[in-house]
Amino acid sequence: MPVSAPLKEACGEIADLAHAASVLAWDQQTYMPPRGAESRGRQMATLSSLIHERITSARLGDLMARAESDGDLSEDGRAFLRELDFIRTRLIKLPGSLVREMALETSAAFEAWVRARKQKDFAAFAPHLSRLLELSRQKAECLGYKDTPWDALVPDFEPGMTAATLRPILEPLREATVALLGRIRAVPEPDTQFLSGTWPADRQREFGLRVARDIGFDFEGGRQDIAAHPFCTSFGRGDVRITTRYDESNPVEALLATIHECGHALYDQGFRTEDDRTPLAGAPSHGIHESQSRFWEIVIAHSTPFWRHFLPVMKEYFPGQLDGVEVGDFVRAINRVRPSLIRVGADEVTYNLHIAVRFDLEVRLLAGELAVEDIPAEWNRQYKELLGVDVPDDAAGCLQDVHWSHAAFGYFPSYTLGNIYGAMIAEKMEEDLPGMWDDVEQGRFTAPLEWLREHVHREGKRLRPVPLVRKVTGRDPSADALLRHFERKYGELLGI
Amino acid sequence: MPVSAPLKEACGEIADLAHAASVLAWDQQTYMPPRGAESRGRQMATLSSLIHERITSARLGDLMARAESDGDLSEDGRAFLRELDFIRTRLIKLPGSLVREMALETSAAFEAWVRARKQKDFAAFAPHLSRLLELSRQKAECLGYKDTPWDALVPDFEPGMTAATLRPILEPLREATVALLGRIRAVPEPDTQFLSGTWPADRQREFGLRVARDIGFDFEGGRQDIAAHPFCTSFGRGDVRITTRYDESNPVEALLATIHECGHALYDQGFRTEDDRTPLAGAPSHGIHESQSRFWEIVIAHSTPFWRHFLPVMKEYFPGQLDGVEVGDFVRAINRVRPSLIRVGADEVTYNLHIAVRFDLEVRLLAGELAVEDIPAEWNRQYKELLGVDVPDDAAGCLQDVHWSHAAFGYFPSYTLGNIYGAMIAEKMEEDLPGMWDDVEQGRFTAPLEWLREHVHREGKRLRPVPLVRKVTGRDPSADALLRHFERKYGELLGI
Repeated sequence: MPVSAPLKEACGEIADLAHAASVLAWDQQTYMPPRGAESRGRQMATLSSLIHERITSARLGDLMARAESDGDLSEDGRAFLRELDFIRTRLIKLPGSLVREMALETSAAFEAWVRARKQKDFAAFAPHLSRLLELSRQKAECLGYKDTPWDALVPDFEPGMTAATLRPILEPLREATVALLGRIRAVPEPDTQFLSGTWPADRQREFGLRVARDIGFDFEGGRQDIAAHPFCTSFGRGDVRITTRYDESNPVEALLATIHECGHALYDQGFRTEDDRTPLAGAPSHGIHESQSRFWEIVIAHSTPFWRHFLPVMKEYFPGQLDGVEVGDFVRAINRVRPSLIRVGADEVTYNLHIAVRFDLEVRLLAGELAVEDIPAEWNRQYKELLGVDVPDDAAGCLQDVHWSHAAFGYFPSYTLGNIYGAMIAEKMEEDLPGMWDDVEQGRFTAPLEWLREHVHREGKRLRPVPLVRKVTGRDPSADALLRHFERKYGELLGI
Repeated sequence: MPVSAPLKEACGEIADLAHAASVLAWDQQTYMPPRGAESRGRQMATLSSLIHERITSARLGDLMARAESDGDLSEDGRAFLRELDFIRTRLIKLPGSLVREMALETSAAFEAWVRARKQKDFAAFAPHLSRLLELSRQKAECLGYKDTPWDALVPDFEPGMTAATLRPILEPLREATVALLGRIRAVPEPDTQFLSGTWPADRQREFGLRVARDIGFDFEGGRQDIAAHPFCTSFGRGDVRITTRYDESNPVEALLATIHECGHALYDQGFRTEDDRTPLAGAPSHGIHESQSRFWEIVIAHSTPFWRHFLPVMKEYFPGQLDGVEVGDFVRAINRVRPSLIRVGADEVTYNLHIAVRFDLEVRLLAGELAVEDIPAEWNRQYKELLGVDVPDDAAGCLQDVHWSHAAFGYFPSYTLGNIYGAMIAEKMEEDLPGMWDDVEQGRFTAPLEWLREHVHREGKRLRPVPLVRKVTGRDPSADALLRHFERKYGELLGI
């Protein structure tokens, strides 16, 4: 039998509050006037503490205990309880004083980070980062870990993962990527000249909406707005929002960001109706969620078949601007691999090297094996070693990401896991759907989307991340599929 | 001394939740995709019941009792407690079963009203209305009243008012209006031909934003979006939203609606910072709030000095479309008085007759002195008697307003009180600011706005509605000022 109605309703109300908080956060990023920030902050804090209160409440604990002692729970009911217990246990382990202090310190650290980045001065951020690391170590002690404090934090993003389980996945990828990069850099870079010029934002918007609709985004159950940073957020069944921004000097950035967010949105639009307002309506991990955005952005929308269909369409949206550009030229241009300083906007190959640096630094920082003041030097050394680039200042180096100012230690590997899982899923999909690339070339995306719906989306959180990956792909997580994808693609595109 | 910090914080959290609910409601009317309605309904229901739970909680009662017994409360502290107690007591008096039943029945009644109006068939709505009247009579019994059940409901909109206190205000207005209308209808109608044509929505929008900015709307602390019905909503200090809609065949409707909503917004933007998140940040009644919207919409934006300034500006926004139109022609056109069937969009003179019909019917319906099935006949009879119009069907008659489907009995008089209070305030302002109309003619609105800030906005809910009217204008509520305003204006415009 399923979980009891009162337990389901208690979780439903928590979900309602969480979705309400998401509406407030969405509005904050899209439409809120500047002077509304202070009020909004308080409203979101009030909702957060209510949600915290409800999840950790004795009443919810009683309802869960009763469900557990029932013994006759269905498989879905057990997954429901497991997911709820996972979240609840972690919250209960953290003392309120630590949660409040963390909220205060991250708020101050974020302000300091904004200033420090502007001034390109890591030293101005360092004391805040030290404080956040100290609090995060306290958090790790409360949550518990076996090997290293970082392991206690990563389950917020990748349940079941630790530094030790991640290393055999990420390290071979790092080594192979450095080697691959050498081969790619040895051949001439593709021409990207035809991507310069001015690409009117309204045309970009129309084209982006067209592509989003074509790949399956349901505009009756979602919408796209403009925000400083592209993101996807769900307000529950029937309302999934994505955002983008337009740069008139770049015709593909907003489009690819739109497709990326669409990948997240298709996932959120694809949970089972019966799971709505339950702990099962969600991705098992950030990496799994990212696999969906990267599948659509990288596997599909960086492919030759995709552009065989869409380049002629794009030419209609930008008359005269792509005259004479062939599909091959276009695909090579948007797949240009070039080591760079900034993670955001990095190509798919070098992207994971950016993550490798952060992963290595974070684990050592949390363990106290790397001092905060040594971050810039270590950062710059690794960028030189892995990417071959010289970091000119901290803004273009260790101050570039917002994550540490939020104390989101343990988050970065999810990006690479998204790439890895996306490639594993694509490989399995190609096996299952031999006509898949023909479909893509015809602008038909129903079969791949339905495949994802069946194997990934409708699963929700029934399985934990690694078991889900195993079930979907028949394999343990590893970078092999991603490396095969690289080899095949850059072999075809660059003849390496 | 002020109220205790815990009491203030408890109210602050309730305000946060109410503002969060307002964000959700605003999004529902502006951007929400169609399939999001069901989730949104549940989220808003969850927030509502949380707010209800907190307001009626024993903890809040204890905090209030402690504050009351303190004895040393400041005047503001006493007003804080009085307003909180007013809301709380009314909620506590209503049994949860009645509140739930009312929610279910209004939801069903709204659906039925939409269908019935479409089919122009009052009979299809009548059973729902009967049920809502029955529940409202139960509500009245719970809340208590002296004379007639309607009196128990009106305090939700006009605290301190009853049918008996409203009649001496509204009835003389009704009689005088019928007489005035006769005189106005005896002279030729102004020409409105030049208001026909096509008025591009984007130009209307630009002009409306310009006017809103000029009269003082703070776009750093608010914004305007598009919705099916114009409204104003506040998310707390620093974030007040207004909406409008554009009809390309009408160049003034959206503008005047924008100015109307701006009037509400200027009020909401003008509460004291220290009152934020307290029961004092609000209008003492709907009629007082409406006085601000009607002051700007009617007194200011239907005046000759206003258009001496803005007609040339409007001509710039619509080049060639108002060539040769003089200020006098324009002001006469937008002030055309013509009896009509529909309240929304009625001119300022006949508007109050629409309200008079509803007020009379509601009081008798609640008292059981008028049967539901007799509404159409009685409605049509009064429209003929007061406005001289024949009602062709129920959609253009007693089914036109949504209010009864929400069981919002007692609401309508607030509209007329808004007109009355707006005129009283304008009369006092003219005494205090002899240069006011010169300012308006120069497009300077700082002095009138500052006057309203000082006398009305910053007061918040320190005084109840009638005491506030007395303090601001030196007079008891009466329609005299409104009638003087009519006499002066239509004397000048039409020479009657």
